[in-house]
Amino acid sequence: MLKGLTRAGIGDVGGLDSFVRLAAQHGFDAVDAGGQELIDLIAQQQSVTGAKAWLEDAGQGRVRIGSIGLSVEWRRDEDTFRAGLAGLAAEAQAASALGCTACCTYMLPSTDWPAAHFAIIATRRLRTCAQVLGAYGIRLGLEFVGPHHLRTKWANPFLRTLQETLDWIDAIGEPNVGLLFDAYHWYTNELGVQDIVRLRSDQIVHVHINDAPDVPVAEALDNGRLYPGDGVIDLAGFLRGLNQIGYEGVVAQEILTQTPPAGTPEELAARSKQAFHRVFQAAGLE
Amino acid sequence: MLKGLTRAGIGDVGGLDSFVRLAAQHGFDAVDAGGQELIDLIAQQQSVTGAKAWLEDAGQGRVRIGSIGLSVEWRRDEDTFRAGLAGLAAEAQAASALGCTACCTYMLPSTDWPAAHFAIIATRRLRTCAQVLGAYGIRLGLEFVGPHHLRTKWANPFLRTLQETLDWIDAIGEPNVGLLFDAYHWYTNELGVQDIVRLRSDQIVHVHINDAPDVPVAEALDNGRLYPGDGVIDLAGFLRGLNQIGYEGVVAQEILTQTPPAGTPEELAARSKQAFHRVFQAAGLE
Amino acid sequence: MLKGLTRAGIGDVGGLDSFVRLAAQHGFDAVDAGGQELIDLIAQQQSVTGAKAWLEDAGQGRVRIGSIGLSVEWRRDEDTFRAGLAGLAAEAQAASALGCTACCTYMLPSTDWPAAHFAIIATRRLRTCAQVLGAYGIRLGLEFVGPHHLRTKWANPFLRTLQETLDWIDAIGEPNVGLLFDAYHWYTNELGVQDIVRLRSDQIVHVHINDAPDVPVAEALDNGRLYPGDGVIDLAGFLRGLNQIGYEGVVAQEILTQTPPAGTPEELAARSKQAFHRVFQAAGLE
Amino acid sequence: MLKGLTRAGIGDVGGLDSFVRLAAQHGFDAVDAGGQELIDLIAQQQSVTGAKAWLEDAGQGRVRIGSIGLSVEWRRDEDTFRAGLAGLAAEAQAASALGCTACCTYMLPSTDWPAAHFAIIATRRLRTCAQVLGAYGIRLGLEFVGPHHLRTKWANPFLRTLQETLDWIDAIGEPNVGLLFDAYHWYTNELGVQDIVRLRSDQIVHVHINDAPDVPVAEALDNGRLYPGDGVIDLAGFLRGLNQIGYEGVVAQEILTQTPPAGTPEELAARSKQAFHRVFQAAGLE
Repeated sequence: MLKGLTRAGIGDVGGLDSFVRLAAQHGFDAVDAGGQELIDLIAQQQSVTGAKAWLEDAGQGRVRIGSIGLSVEWRRDEDTFRAGLAGLAAEAQAASALGCTACCTYMLPSTDWPAAHFAIIATRRLRTCAQVLGAYGIRLGLEFVGPHHLRTKWANPFLRTLQETLDWIDAIGEPNVGLLFDAYHWYTNELGVQDIVRLRSDQIVHVHINDAPDVPVAEALDNGRLYPGDGVIDLAGFLRGLNQIGYEGVVAQEILTQTPPAGTPEELAARSKQAFHRVFQAAGLE
Repeated sequence: MLKGLTRAGIGDVGGLDSFVRLAAQHGFDAVDAGGQELIDLIAQQQSVTGAKAWLEDAGQGRVRIGSIGLSVEWRRDEDTFRAGLAGLAAEAQAASALGCTACCTYMLPSTDWPAAHFAIIATRRLRTCAQVLGAYGIRLGLEFVGPHHLRTKWANPFLRTLQETLDWIDAIGEPNVGLLFDAYHWYTNELGVQDIVRLRSDQIVHVHINDAPDVPVAEALDNGRLYPGDGVIDLAGFLRGLNQIGYEGVVAQEILTQTPPAGTPEELAARSKQAFHRVFQAAGLE
Repeated sequence: MLKGLTRAGIGDVGGLDSFVRLAAQHGFDAVDAGGQELIDLIAQQQSVTGAKAWLEDAGQGRVRIGSIGLSVEWRRDEDTFRAGLAGLAAEAQAASALGCTACCTYMLPSTDWPAAHFAIIATRRLRTCAQVLGAYGIRLGLEFVGPHHLRTKWANPFLRTLQETLDWIDAIGEPNVGLLFDAYHWYTNELGVQDIVRLRSDQIVHVHINDAPDVPVAEALDNGRLYPGDGVIDLAGFLRGLNQIGYEGVVAQEILTQTPPAGTPEELAARSKQAFHRVFQAAGLE
Repeated sequence: MLKGLTRAGIGDVGGLDSFVRLAAQHGFDAVDAGGQELIDLIAQQQSVTGAKAWLEDAGQGRVRIGSIGLSVEWRRDEDTFRAGLAGLAAEAQAASALGCTACCTYMLPSTDWPAAHFAIIATRRLRTCAQVLGAYGIRLGLEFVGPHHLRTKWANPFLRTLQETLDWIDAIGEPNVGLLFDAYHWYTNELGVQDIVRLRSDQIVHVHINDAPDVPVAEALDNGRLYPGDGVIDLAGFLRGLNQIGYEGVVAQEILTQTPPAGTPEELAARSKQAFHRVFQAAGLE
């Protein structure tokens, strides 16, 4: 498995340039970026070849782009969806050119839309996104979201569980759609290692890692996350399960917090490195 | 447009044999049947050729099979779905061999399932049904259901409106899926002629006709239907709208009632013939 | 049916601005444009609303955009395809915003690729294009190409006949794919009116009209086309057939010639107007 | 990886009953069967539960059904296809109920059809088959065929190479389609281990193993196959490559020969067991 960083948990790291360098300096294998950042990088470096050379250099030969976020807004009105979709292929092309093969989005566990209607509209829209991404060899990862407080934040319950997400992937029906599997949502959905080892590794597009405070699970807030190993999630079991099924992709840290974590990006990246080491070691993976 | 009969509204007509003869005798162009009935017919007549000859003879050269019902139970558990699906291709093959190109099902406007989960599972299942039917040149018609009392009969609201149904057809994403457009559901959904003429004729797979009693629309019961012209639905406008967009398919009578209508099949078929004549004449179509 | 113009047959008319004005002045209902032209128009007019107002004004309230050409190069290597695809959604968005619902491409009847391999790669690529277009409510029209000399111009025979094209549309499998039906290819494929009336109008996305010289059909060159009525194609039958099945879309003139036709755009547009009048009159359609 | 047997190479073993017992007695993990055999087994045992119990007993707790053959004839006329398709879901249901998740077919490297037309018709038909199989959780494996003499046996070249097959899987576009990877076709297509390790294990549905005589590769006949280890194919490399990418499915022996191999089924199964042992040992896998 590859160790990755998102921007959540490392302070204000600035542009892709400094983000990649920071990741490399602390031994990470991947960073999650925005598709537009990759388009911009290619423009700045004046060619795909130039951008690849830059990435190779700044990333010390080890940092890849783990995933881009799905920039298309698929949760609102049709015009907004269509406007966003217009830019997706260019992002996918840039990502593909730089070796990134994952694009991710999440769905909230409740919605103010009528739930069935939203489900079918979102099915159609995410299918279209997957089709565009698929043309560039990129997979779409869907992240189910577990924290209990979000389940009733909006009027109607929406898709939330692992099984519902797998069923949604079937309904979308494209070969390149899978899971973004986040430790926090695994925990707050009260799943176990047995739920991981039932999966095939090719069902998982991307993984997020983080930890939860020692509060009743129903009280774990979405933006109350801790660094891996600082909390109560069985991250050793989580990683062992993923390893057992042969998952070899990126495990990216994502620490959503109410207030920014204290420390410089360097300090936080070093802390993240330690956190990864601790939980990978606990899992017997290093 | 072709005038058709379903078994709802003509009493206990018996097997397909007597149903087809009754329709022919009263000048109807089509009957709606079960797929298994068509398989049985071919078996009885020992060949497709024999079955076609029988239909030509019994139907006096005018009666065709308007639609078959979707026999697959897509609303319950997966095993039930799979078991039903196993027989669909044979029904489609029989229907196709006898010239039938429509297969229909309906969705209730509320459900005890979590609505979003049911929506995506049903999307996947109906897509599979459409794919099987499509292999035999048969279209799948989805009937939205309007009566208000059904909207709260089960725990969660489900897809109900014309627009939601069109959106569902998009989400299913197969070229051979369209609407079963029923006058009663058009009326109880409080739609107008302007909603019909916005459609393209190729979006409509099949049409049901019937009438509603003179009660507040919210009190019109699903099984409280009247013969065309006996009630308050603007069936002249309904038919004119369908004609205006070029719909040339079957308009089949479906009179769901709490107790069977009084009269022999012959009397009820004659009554149906009169009812059709009245509303088609009012629409300026004969 | 709506009378339309392409740029082939009206001389060097210049930009979309003068093309639309010319079409309006000579009573045409539609012009075929490039998707990029529509993006540029919206940019020039600073908004979709502005562009629509301009079109309404310059087109005298009658000229619409009949079709855009598929700008994506789907016949060459994968990188070229992907690069072209990146711009398709923006073109589709512009076209859709201006009321255009058709995008067309053609396939040549022979290829230097191994035919089966090219067929499946093209199937996948055109499906992706159709999916992107479909997200904006735009249909993809496929034009089969009839002239005999093109059948052996490249090493291997490719899809060429009407039936093969219909089969291809089935293989692509998206609801929004249909035919661009061109009179010249209908003629050079030696099809008759009976082949048109077997179609459903919703299978036809767009129509081209033109005429062929009085030479043996096998000698009619792709770029040897005449104005409607100047040649030997049964255009009255062609138009009657389309009318009979209810086709109400655009019939656009496309006169491919080896040397540009003599005359100013005004003269050629006037000539085209006469040509349309003649063949529509012969068909009993005006 | 699981060691499996097909009926090709073990003599006239008789029904599924004796085939399963023979495989179990010689330490095999899987047998390839016909879908109808599985339907018959369930009928004989009067229930799925009964059939599973029988399989557990006769197979000594180790023999599973590795794959069923695709019984649908997709290479001929449409009526034949439709007739075959009618039975597929029932076969898939039986297979799924008994734990089998693979169904396989092969394509010949030349055809008397026009190649492009055959390619698109086959694309559509195999997609439909995949959709039906997918409803039961079964994958469709496509076997490319390498022997040179078959490349010109029919008039037109068809899809033959690994890359073409991967492209075809993309064109079919269903998530449950992959490769049947046969050592003989790998060898006669002159592929190497580097071509295996470029694959992902989830692209491989099923594997066949066998060996080729020491003749020039262009002269290796499709029905001139040897037992694993008796010939010149680098089966150690083949197996190591599959192991390296994480393939854990069935590797089934398929020995197509011009005349039946000499020996009783018991002798041939024992010989097969030895052959497997030899090549797995050479690969360092036992």
